[in-house]
Amino acid sequence: MKLQLPKGTQDIKPEEKILRDEVVGTLKRVFERYGFSPLETPIIERYETLSAKYGGGSEILKETFRLKDRGGRSLGLRFDLTIPLARFVGMNPNLKMPFKRYQIGLTYRDGPIKLGRLREFYQCDVDTVGTENMLADAEMIKLTLDIIKELGLEGYVEVNNRKLLNGILEYADVDKNKRLDAIIIIDKLKKVGIGEVKKELRKIGLSKESIKRIDAVLGISDDYNYKKILKKLKKIIKNKIGVEGIKELEELFSYFGKNEIRNIKLNISLARGLAYYTGPVFEAFLKKSLIKSAIAGGGRYDEMIGLYLGGRKKIPATGISLGLEPIIEAIKLKRKIVKKTNTKVYVIPIKTLKESLKVIKTLRRNNINSDIDLVGRGISKNLSYANSLNIPFVIIIGKEETKNKKIKLRNMKTGRERLLTIKEVVKLLKK
Amino acid sequence: MKLQLPKGTQDIKPEEKILRDEVVGTLKRVFERYGFSPLETPIIERYETLSAKYGGGSEILKETFRLKDRGGRSLGLRFDLTIPLARFVGMNPNLKMPFKRYQIGLTYRDGPIKLGRLREFYQCDVDTVGTENMLADAEMIKLTLDIIKELGLEGYVEVNNRKLLNGILEYADVDKNKRLDAIIIIDKLKKVGIGEVKKELRKIGLSKESIKRIDAVLGISDDYNYKKILKKLKKIIKNKIGVEGIKELEELFSYFGKNEIRNIKLNISLARGLAYYTGPVFEAFLKKSLIKSAIAGGGRYDEMIGLYLGGRKKIPATGISLGLEPIIEAIKLKRKIVKKTNTKVYVIPIKTLKESLKVIKTLRRNNINSDIDLVGRGISKNLSYANSLNIPFVIIIGKEETKNKKIKLRNMKTGRERLLTIKEVVKLLKK
Repeated sequence: MKLQLPKGTQDIKPEEKILRDEVVGTLKRVFERYGFSPLETPIIERYETLSAKYGGGSEILKETFRLKDRGGRSLGLRFDLTIPLARFVGMNPNLKMPFKRYQIGLTYRDGPIKLGRLREFYQCDVDTVGTENMLADAEMIKLTLDIIKELGLEGYVEVNNRKLLNGILEYADVDKNKRLDAIIIIDKLKKVGIGEVKKELRKIGLSKESIKRIDAVLGISDDYNYKKILKKLKKIIKNKIGVEGIKELEELFSYFGKNEIRNIKLNISLARGLAYYTGPVFEAFLKKSLIKSAIAGGGRYDEMIGLYLGGRKKIPATGISLGLEPIIEAIKLKRKIVKKTNTKVYVIPIKTLKESLKVIKTLRRNNINSDIDLVGRGISKNLSYANSLNIPFVIIIGKEETKNKKIKLRNMKTGRERLLTIKEVVKLLKK
Repeated sequence: MKLQLPKGTQDIKPEEKILRDEVVGTLKRVFERYGFSPLETPIIERYETLSAKYGGGSEILKETFRLKDRGGRSLGLRFDLTIPLARFVGMNPNLKMPFKRYQIGLTYRDGPIKLGRLREFYQCDVDTVGTENMLADAEMIKLTLDIIKELGLEGYVEVNNRKLLNGILEYADVDKNKRLDAIIIIDKLKKVGIGEVKKELRKIGLSKESIKRIDAVLGISDDYNYKKILKKLKKIIKNKIGVEGIKELEELFSYFGKNEIRNIKLNISLARGLAYYTGPVFEAFLKKSLIKSAIAGGGRYDEMIGLYLGGRKKIPATGISLGLEPIIEAIKLKRKIVKKTNTKVYVIPIKTLKESLKVIKTLRRNNINSDIDLVGRGISKNLSYANSLNIPFVIIIGKEETKNKKIKLRNMKTGRERLLTIKEVVKLLKK
């Protein structure tokens, strides 16, 4: 048998997993600080749940892993955490609204494997279901900025509004049935430039006059100063949907303090790919990092859950999804040194197993992560083992030391050795 | 569309997930305290990996969920964390030994659904690979006792040794090819009684004399006092494998302190179902709990990984697997009151949104989990919302309060309300 992993999957080795646990811990802490509660849904869902109308759409279903249970029921591996949320909301009609939940879990897409694209990957979603209040959207942006800061990174959030985009297209006299396509093309502006956007708009059949008007409006950038941009837009966009979008943006921005505003940019070409967004949309990026792609993205989707559940009731919602992979990459690039172990100290007994076991028991009782020679190796082999695992301290316990009730503590970084009592060692390592 | 979950799966709702996060946090903390590092392997594995000889065995393969990727490769959902560990060890020949890792992850078995039996469930495994030292086995038992204690439960570990069992069967003159079957029957002693065990041993063709001898040896229980039991066994069991088993048990017990010994019982009928155990085996149970089944089980498996990887090299290993589901059940039974939310305080603005946003910002900056009215409801609706989520404190901010720079803090349990400055509130809630 040849040992290998399925394509697009990875083993997350200890040194990598320790970093992930730290990042996930930060996400959870911030999510809960904002009043979100954890939810966990199964990775396997009924295929019917995943494929229902207003759910994934046919593109994503092509990439859905399918399987059957022993009863012959058709199942699939979830491709996101939004459909499971919609299903959960539908199955729990007595849920108190607004329902604020976060979920961090694996998702699966059997897509083509490009560099770095995984078939098994984490999504970290936070959503507020049951309110149309822009404050809920503001919280998504606030918590994303908190997370970036607490991970020791620098970043900003770009914001826009789908209603404004629709208003711009109405102002440019674009057919209703072409608007979604046009929005998805405009979304690429930052990446491909205005020339390419105009070319593509022409391709889907927009008139010269329409494109000219779109070009003129998108030209308003004003260094992303939202006040200046909105002031100019107000003079141009007078249709109902556009005015509503501008009003939502004004309300949204009113919820931010001065410190926050500095890291929030109004980018009127931002749309996000997904069809189901209905209001504010947002994407987070890093500053001073080689990671140029968005590390988080989301927006308001007031129609999707209601339609998914049969359309009798409107269930407004907003949320943001953070990408664990790019965040991890960015931290690794920034930190250079990544912690390889959580073990603080490694105990080497030299014919003093009984005494050494007492020492390690004391260390562990004091919640100091400790390991001990399990093989009965000599000092130098033990030191090289501890060194290869990047364990910062080693304790050497020889006959001599036990007689004097002292143990030798070696700092593996400096090589410095000190003779200390166990009490002193505990005090030092607890820091 | 009818909304439903796949059979044998569950949504883990916030109040349940909060408890799970707490338990998983305790497991991780104790695992790392003993020098184990986290590992994460994919949930999907190549079917070849799962079905390889010395891997799962045909029984478990019948319960394995199978799927294919777009390249037509045959894949499966992992049914345990041991095969992935063996694969990982094989794919990483430069791993420093001993390799001490833990993994907490979902596993899948498409088995018949009995009450409480899930098709998607967590396994929490901790294993030491690369040493035959009994101290590694002792650590498994020690950390299990630590975990039970730190979860606020009471419990004990039963211990035995497969070599001793084989020695007993050799002493009883049982055919080599019948020994594994006999061991699995003897394992049921505690559950079904000696009468049923003897009947089943007869069924697989053991002689009267063999059964008599087994019966006599298993009769040695001595209140699980390992010293007394081993002393008696030594007088009876003289064959090589049995003597080795006794020696291993003596060594294992020598690593425990007096406090630990009180919660470790030598049960010479304990075997654990799996075929691959070669030395010490252990199972943990709770005291004073309605949960009677084992909450953890494991043992030494010195042959399995080496044989799985082609048999050129022996790779000794020992490990224990903790059951998250029975642990959660036991805690719920014990605690009665389960925390429904991690949110500490809910802010109700009464026409004071701007001031209230400042208050919640201060609370969150101080790492106090806080929520705020997102709907613009009246006081009583807001209070009933906070109450239904079991949020312990509510802050009410009216015009009057903002004038006096005070806010009203209500203890939701006692109903007591106090007018306090924001500083005082932070101090009080941080406790």
